Amino acid sequence: MPSHLMSRRDLDFLLHEWLRVSESPEGTVDRETVDAVLDLAEQVATRWFAPHNRRNDSEEPRFDGTRVHVHDEVAPALAAYFEAGFGGMTMPEELGGSDLPVVVAQAADLWFSAANVGTAGYPFLTKANANLLRAHATPEQVATWVQPMVEGRFFGTMCLSEPQAGSSLADVTTRAVPHGDGTWRVRGNKMWISGGDHELSDNIVHLVLARAAGAPAGVRGLSLFIVPKVLPDGSRNDVQLAGLNHKMGMRGITNTLLNFGEADGAVGYLVGDENRGLAYMFHMMNEARVGVGTSAVALGYSGYLHALEYARTRPQGRPIGAKDPASPMVPIVDHADVRRMLLAMKSYVEGGLALELYCGRLLDEERTATDPGRAREARLLLEILTPIAKSWPSQWCLAANDLAIQVHGGYGYTREYPVEQLWRDNRLNPIHEGTHGIQALDLLGRKVTMADGAAVHLLAARMRDTIERAAATPGAPATHAAELAAHLDRTLEVTAALWATGDPALALADATTYLEVLGHLVVAWLWLDVELVATRAETATDPFHAGKRAAAQYFFTRELPRLGPQLDLLAGMDRLLVDLDPSVL
Amino acid sequence: MPSHLMSRRDLDFLLHEWLRVSESPEGTVDRETVDAVLDLAEQVATRWFAPHNRRNDSEEPRFDGTRVHVHDEVAPALAAYFEAGFGGMTMPEELGGSDLPVVVAQAADLWFSAANVGTAGYPFLTKANANLLRAHATPEQVATWVQPMVEGRFFGTMCLSEPQAGSSLADVTTRAVPHGDGTWRVRGNKMWISGGDHELSDNIVHLVLARAAGAPAGVRGLSLFIVPKVLPDGSRNDVQLAGLNHKMGMRGITNTLLNFGEADGAVGYLVGDENRGLAYMFHMMNEARVGVGTSAVALGYSGYLHALEYARTRPQGRPIGAKDPASPMVPIVDHADVRRMLLAMKSYVEGGLALELYCGRLLDEERTATDPGRAREARLLLEILTPIAKSWPSQWCLAANDLAIQVHGGYGYTREYPVEQLWRDNRLNPIHEGTHGIQALDLLGRKVTMADGAAVHLLAARMRDTIERAAATPGAPATHAAELAAHLDRTLEVTAALWATGDPALALADATTYLEVLGHLVVAWLWLDVELVATRAETATDPFHAGKRAAAQYFFTRELPRLGPQLDLLAGMDRLLVDLDPSVL
Repeated sequence: MPSHLMSRRDLDFLLHEWLRVSESPEGTVDRETVDAVLDLAEQVATRWFAPHNRRNDSEEPRFDGTRVHVHDEVAPALAAYFEAGFGGMTMPEELGGSDLPVVVAQAADLWFSAANVGTAGYPFLTKANANLLRAHATPEQVATWVQPMVEGRFFGTMCLSEPQAGSSLADVTTRAVPHGDGTWRVRGNKMWISGGDHELSDNIVHLVLARAAGAPAGVRGLSLFIVPKVLPDGSRNDVQLAGLNHKMGMRGITNTLLNFGEADGAVGYLVGDENRGLAYMFHMMNEARVGVGTSAVALGYSGYLHALEYARTRPQGRPIGAKDPASPMVPIVDHADVRRMLLAMKSYVEGGLALELYCGRLLDEERTATDPGRAREARLLLEILTPIAKSWPSQWCLAANDLAIQVHGGYGYTREYPVEQLWRDNRLNPIHEGTHGIQALDLLGRKVTMADGAAVHLLAARMRDTIERAAATPGAPATHAAELAAHLDRTLEVTAALWATGDPALALADATTYLEVLGHLVVAWLWLDVELVATRAETATDPFHAGKRAAAQYFFTRELPRLGPQLDLLAGMDRLLVDLDPSVL
Repeated sequence: MPSHLMSRRDLDFLLHEWLRVSESPEGTVDRETVDAVLDLAEQVATRWFAPHNRRNDSEEPRFDGTRVHVHDEVAPALAAYFEAGFGGMTMPEELGGSDLPVVVAQAADLWFSAANVGTAGYPFLTKANANLLRAHATPEQVATWVQPMVEGRFFGTMCLSEPQAGSSLADVTTRAVPHGDGTWRVRGNKMWISGGDHELSDNIVHLVLARAAGAPAGVRGLSLFIVPKVLPDGSRNDVQLAGLNHKMGMRGITNTLLNFGEADGAVGYLVGDENRGLAYMFHMMNEARVGVGTSAVALGYSGYLHALEYARTRPQGRPIGAKDPASPMVPIVDHADVRRMLLAMKSYVEGGLALELYCGRLLDEERTATDPGRAREARLLLEILTPIAKSWPSQWCLAANDLAIQVHGGYGYTREYPVEQLWRDNRLNPIHEGTHGIQALDLLGRKVTMADGAAVHLLAARMRDTIERAAATPGAPATHAAELAAHLDRTLEVTAALWATGDPALALADATTYLEVLGHLVVAWLWLDVELVATRAETATDPFHAGKRAAAQYFFTRELPRLGPQLDLLAGMDRLLVDLDPSVL
């Protein structure tokens, strides 16, 4: 039976036929290694993660006032994950890692998200935490905290939000004062902390944003502290679990309200320089944002595979015009509307996957490029693509999960089938790590204008490169190239017009629409690039490549045209949202 | 504190300022009566239904193999509902009813759906069942079964689907054979039966579609039977609960798999003529479809009111350009993106409410018009509007619930806030009583072509009447009138072109897109009609009417333009879905 987690065939296609990860200058990995990593990921995810995904939902973690209880299948799964080396895939060998490209690690982790996004959350946060410390902490701090996280003995968290400060990090009130011995004492309440308490690891390494005594107000006064649950001498630090949040989905990972320093002050260790905490945290957040998008893809992808299987095997109804009720029923995949839903899902989840792997590839380029110009290009592209990589799959792969329920009909609405949980789990993704609206402001307010628009122009140049190649490929690619070029031109015009207003409040009023426009434009571009690979003579008769062409066709005829009215709206500089008197609502 | 269930102000506006329910020829009800009914509905819903809405979700009904257990707040709520007379609002006085217009009963029931859609499901199904029997059963049957349903002593169900026959009723296999004494014996399995078993009423009146011995195959061989849980002599009928379905939402009402006649055959009583069962059932289904849409509106509306309250009271962030972190935070309703979401919700839920009440009004017109031509017009409009009234709010008020979560941020994703349950509850509505895709086929395949297109033309004429009045109203209404007229013309052209193909499979391939187009067109029309009422000189400075104008403006600038690419797609007669080889998916 084929896996309902991810499509290995599609991963192989995108990694090797499209991105050619083992052939380009950054290719520090051979095909055999990639195959072995993905084989193992599928095996461990299938054996250890998938079986308790439903149980994570129905038996969510409980807090009895003293301890957090997590059911008994989580710890063995996490042990299997770290034992197999997935905790250190991108870490250097001296830290016990295997120094794999990010894009390969990302492909491996998709299996775990698809199998069990709750349990997978613990190592994902741990790895992001470890990567931040590896980049910004002292060698001693790395030895003390990172090494055990690579091994899975310690887990990590990121502690940014507070009850009164979610999107608005400028309003973080957690305080830190120097203790005179090189350590600090941290006091404050942190909210929405995933993995914030449990007994799954020997220790929990909290990375806490706090305001050092005397620091300026706003985000420029935030510093970053390591605040472990257990201190190096084995005693408990002053970090108390105030309670668990009870979520609609994504229930497998504890989500906590933590009180730091209610008694003596929690012992903290400053990371890097004072007041630079947010910059360091963004290292983690940017990685986490691509991670959120990747996880959204995995949930959507699994839903698609379940829906496809159901549509192929569920008989119901007859073709249009077949009036004889004695004739046999057909599988629902024969109905046009079911095909519409499946093609929509396919275009969302495979398009989203291409987007995330492309970002992973850019992370590798940035890290390994010997040419500094090339590294800078990768960084610029990542800056502008990160809000899209976070938001687009959070919106459209969630839409794919909705369609997966619809394909299943009433069965899809029951907890006997997996698709409803996938939908609920995925609903968190447009919220955490910066909401959809926050990503939109980041994109249009910062990334589009940064370096005199260099990121936009670079992105446009990459698109034009694909357009040029596609224009020379008669048939669908050439048609799609012309459509993409027209929408790209219009988007650039509108972008310029927005900022020409000189009125940031007006320019940003429809930032979310702009985010959605650029997201669809980027995914259309990637679909065109993929379509080119699937249009070679040697792939003409292969059903897999025909599927890629059909999904590209779907996206160009039914998705890209959404941009028309959205660009009209943006070009019109509508004042409705700015001028609204909210008392009329 | 204002109610977070429904807006009484909006109901009053739509019923009295817009539809003028107590002034027109069908107005068999005075304003005082309407006020008293709505006052009472709000009171009973608030006092008896709302308090256990969350508990319905967390303590869903359990089946122990013998009995169904429902927690202890449901029965008293239902008793209060029937005691207050809501069980017979539209029933004649001789059956214990109060003979109210449908539109008033509908407005009253919105409070119960918003407060607790699960518990409200029992009386809603019971009333639909009773209405069917009142229309098609013998006087003896009415006396035996309908009277106790009006009083709330018996509850009712509708039993259509079977495990192998959901959308495809032609494949129903439940059989009925005459027993020689005027009764029948019914045997078969029915799936997805809401309220199919419980101990909340003395009896359960199942209306069962079954195939009489010797009947033809397909839907023309279906007959309708009353199959009570308890027989008139007090003995248990041969109806067994095989199990409960465990749903993602809408958990307050049991959803069952029922086995009829596994032992001796279940005693059934034929309703009307043999082989006309589906026609009778459609009486109930059409009412149920408007009911589904109305319920979807109620859930969306309540979510909007919660989100609005949250947005007005949650401080977070500062206006664009306000850089001073020491300046106070603003309520999030001041952020453009939050306003966008609130206006979108408002345009969906208030537009949906107008649509449902308009349908209720048509039901009253059909019933009470003395002019047969007028009654026929009401029927034709209902035929074409029913699939839209079912689908549009199921799609867009569900989208409103999604936005309500988003406005709440992380809090909205927790079960401590009500908006996540509203979203899960509403997700059933695009599925039951005919899926979105089934409604689309009904609309484009049957309703659009019926009576030589008379329904479409009548609908267009009604729209043109509004357009004409709006065109004479300078400002926004005139602008919107021109936009609506253009989209209406194009939609009629495309409709004709689709059927001119002579290829039903191609014409219907994108029926769902057509449904979405006509839905938005209809709601835009109703918004324009409402906007006209809100644009009179005497309403110029009233914030409530200003809110109506803002929402209409939102709908015309941000929703109606979606039709452009959708109509392009339909006009292009895209063959992608028809020609697709599903093996490439």
